[in-house]
Amino acid sequence: MNRKAVVLLSGGLDSATVLAIAKQQCFDCYALSMDYGQRHASELDAARMVAASQSVREHLIMPLDLRAMGGSALTDDTLEVPSTPTQGIPVTYVPARNTIFLSLALAWAETLSAEDIFIGVNAVDYSGYPDCRPEFIQAFQNMAAVATRDAVEGRPCQIHAPLIELSKAQIIQYGNALGVDYAQTISCYQANSRGEACGQCDSCRLRAQGFADAGVPDPTRYVAQ
Amino acid sequence: MNRKAVVLLSGGLDSATVLAIAKQQCFDCYALSMDYGQRHASELDAARMVAASQSVREHLIMPLDLRAMGGSALTDDTLEVPSTPTQGIPVTYVPARNTIFLSLALAWAETLSAEDIFIGVNAVDYSGYPDCRPEFIQAFQNMAAVATRDAVEGRPCQIHAPLIELSKAQIIQYGNALGVDYAQTISCYQANSRGEACGQCDSCRLRAQGFADAGVPDPTRYVAQ
Repeated sequence: MNRKAVVLLSGGLDSATVLAIAKQQCFDCYALSMDYGQRHASELDAARMVAASQSVREHLIMPLDLRAMGGSALTDDTLEVPSTPTQGIPVTYVPARNTIFLSLALAWAETLSAEDIFIGVNAVDYSGYPDCRPEFIQAFQNMAAVATRDAVEGRPCQIHAPLIELSKAQIIQYGNALGVDYAQTISCYQANSRGEACGQCDSCRLRAQGFADAGVPDPTRYVAQ
Repeated sequence: MNRKAVVLLSGGLDSATVLAIAKQQCFDCYALSMDYGQRHASELDAARMVAASQSVREHLIMPLDLRAMGGSALTDDTLEVPSTPTQGIPVTYVPARNTIFLSLALAWAETLSAEDIFIGVNAVDYSGYPDCRPEFIQAFQNMAAVATRDAVEGRPCQIHAPLIELSKAQIIQYGNALGVDYAQTISCYQANSRGEACGQCDSCRLRAQGFADAGVPDPTRYVAQ
């Protein structure tokens, strides 16, 4: 019997690649997506397509109303998504997002008796979010090691972040070799309801440059200008 | 202007005491409760009463469907709440609960520009849950110190657990001195919809013993036998 893993699946390019990596490593994959009130809710449709095409065991989409808290351009419509690069950590940062998502993954992993969690964070071609860095993943792992019944009984959960040191181009080449269909994925922070990307936000820029650098045809659908 | 604090408020005895302590320390308090599908949903009514009587700035009750994950007698009706003490960590343990709750508190704190979070965990008269112990709180604090924009910009969040080393009797004496109305609070793991306690579960036993040891009249309403 294969080991189980919980894979955080946003519907973006990175997490689709991570799911393929977990499957390549022979894990039975349980995909977890969060319906957190994100501006780009069409990424959840993408997550559904990716989960289905990669044959996950189960795909759980949890509602979580982070709009009640706000504080990010992704969860507060009064804040605009920048169309040019900004200094420092951009307004698209969602407070404690990966901490929350990993916490929920940790809970699900424990109920499934899974000892592995995969997350597609990347600290090379990224928006500078603090919770995408190696020191955050390590600190979360250390915390998880004392947080759960499984951990104190000798079965700590391992957090895998296989993309964390890769460039976007390397991620795309890796996923391409594994057969990931990137046409299914949505990276844009403000993709419309048809899943079309703006082509201007931070996430669109990083994605487009990644395909160009990787020498892989870019299947992204953009809104008509 | 007072500093802001996020206070995790379950509606139980401990968190009502912690709220009073945070107020005594002159924080403007933002109470956060989770509607996580807990069997004892009447504790949310208790939380509302406590929040109102202690004049919090805001009381946010977040829906969070932990029943979708299950794995605990508190979130899965097919598992029974034990009426006698059990060996090891009991079935009322909710996987990663305090990790999830603290993560959401961390998110709200950041959007409020609050640098303090209060939680009523206790590692003396408790059910043996791993996420109520000092090493967990310290590990969460270490993780939070690298997780958020506020933290990396030099404003890390402080996790306060002022009850962690106190006995239940000491907690009750402390709260009593601060004027906490314990009649408003519900500790029972399976309180009914009228807020009446079973008198038999772990949490009821610890609470009743605490009032007895403290020499404080116990205002708990029990179901008629």
